Amino acid sequence: MADPAQQPVFVLVQPQMGENIGASARAMFNFGLTRMRLVAPRDGWPNPRAKALAAGAGRVLDGLEVHGTTAEAVADRTFTFATTARRRDLSKPVFTPEEAMRQAAALIAAGGKVAILFGPERAGLENADVVRANALISVPVNPEFPSLNLAQCVLLTAYEWRRQNAATPGQTMEWAGTAPATALEIERLADHYEAELEAAGFFFPPQKAESMKLNLRNLWSRLDLSQWDVRTFHGMLRQLLRDRPPGG
Amino acid sequence: MADPAQQPVFVLVQPQMGENIGASARAMFNFGLTRMRLVAPRDGWPNPRAKALAAGAGRVLDGLEVHGTTAEAVADRTFTFATTARRRDLSKPVFTPEEAMRQAAALIAAGGKVAILFGPERAGLENADVVRANALISVPVNPEFPSLNLAQCVLLTAYEWRRQNAATPGQTMEWAGTAPATALEIERLADHYEAELEAAGFFFPPQKAESMKLNLRNLWSRLDLSQWDVRTFHGMLRQLLRDRPPGG
Repeated sequence: MADPAQQPVFVLVQPQMGENIGASARAMFNFGLTRMRLVAPRDGWPNPRAKALAAGAGRVLDGLEVHGTTAEAVADRTFTFATTARRRDLSKPVFTPEEAMRQAAALIAAGGKVAILFGPERAGLENADVVRANALISVPVNPEFPSLNLAQCVLLTAYEWRRQNAATPGQTMEWAGTAPATALEIERLADHYEAELEAAGFFFPPQKAESMKLNLRNLWSRLDLSQWDVRTFHGMLRQLLRDRPPGG
Repeated sequence: MADPAQQPVFVLVQPQMGENIGASARAMFNFGLTRMRLVAPRDGWPNPRAKALAAGAGRVLDGLEVHGTTAEAVADRTFTFATTARRRDLSKPVFTPEEAMRQAAALIAAGGKVAILFGPERAGLENADVVRANALISVPVNPEFPSLNLAQCVLLTAYEWRRQNAATPGQTMEWAGTAPATALEIERLADHYEAELEAAGFFFPPQKAESMKLNLRNLWSRLDLSQWDVRTFHGMLRQLLRDRPPGG
């Protein structure tokens, strides 16, 4: 888990439903984020429904701060993003979550302190809060159907934070107890099949035999076989030929 | 809106709550995706609670297909991803949503047909469905707290689809004169080998037969075979068994 001081703070402004506070805590903690602040939550604080929904992410709620105003909640921050679903008649830079979290990481690495504001469930942030932000974050949704709820907006932002900050390789391979086969193992497997297929009359007509063999070699080497796979293919062939007539 | 034929199909396997089907439809449509298939939904179909929750994303539900089995749901697909939260003892490539959707875009640009499987709410996908997939998608969540629900997993995948497709795909797949095999073709190939190997006594001892068969299915679906490859494997098997003793 990253040092909490190196994380952006997620600020929920005037959240209404306790459930949404809990769901936002879960969404954050899924991506390793633990710093939440509330501004004037409608039902006060603490909120048992928030606790119930947060469940295993309770530590996000245990550490949260409650403030009376947005100004107070971001007072110690050096850079504030405001999430918004609709255009505002305000001149502000607008970032995708991806670009915003890349910038947040750079700001924090340089010693900055970042906040991200999320508005109340129905209305979103008021302009009075939006003008307080240094930049806006807008999720590039389908313009025909922009319907992200609060916890989903928190989820996508937290996801992008982790994506920008974790050195997660884009692809890994799970090998269930077995390593990839070596080129020599592939070669021997190809030899085994080629010999038996030759004996079975597979390479016919003769003038096509060479190109058939070449294509078959190409196939084996393209399949990214594991050592288990290679043993399986050997075993299959041996077993299939178990009852072969003598000299066949 | 992109041509629906150029979209991946999102397959919800045995979804339980109608609300989660509706929430998944909303999550998809937020990012412009409209093609959903259900496998054996617990409460049947149509489901009024799904309709109620989908609201403005009702067109996703209007166009959905219901199938009895996962095999049937992906039969026309050439590449299937399975989303999974936990490690499986299976050898499969594992992608982040980002890399998976980048690859999905490249496959579709090259004429492929892509499915993404999402498991039931509590248990996730069964291994019998996972082995059918060509690759896995795993969201890189906080290992201390991996708690994404179904609609959140759909949301992040749909978000990555749109993010990857806002720009032109940077990668394509070259198939030398032959198209990728469909899931149905792979299924039939697996059936062919399984039947002949069964007859040859390959699955021994009996108490290991089921897991041997599962691992073999997993192998076939992992190999990214082309239609040429599939014909070749069928042909090899038939030719190898040409001289089989009667009743062998």
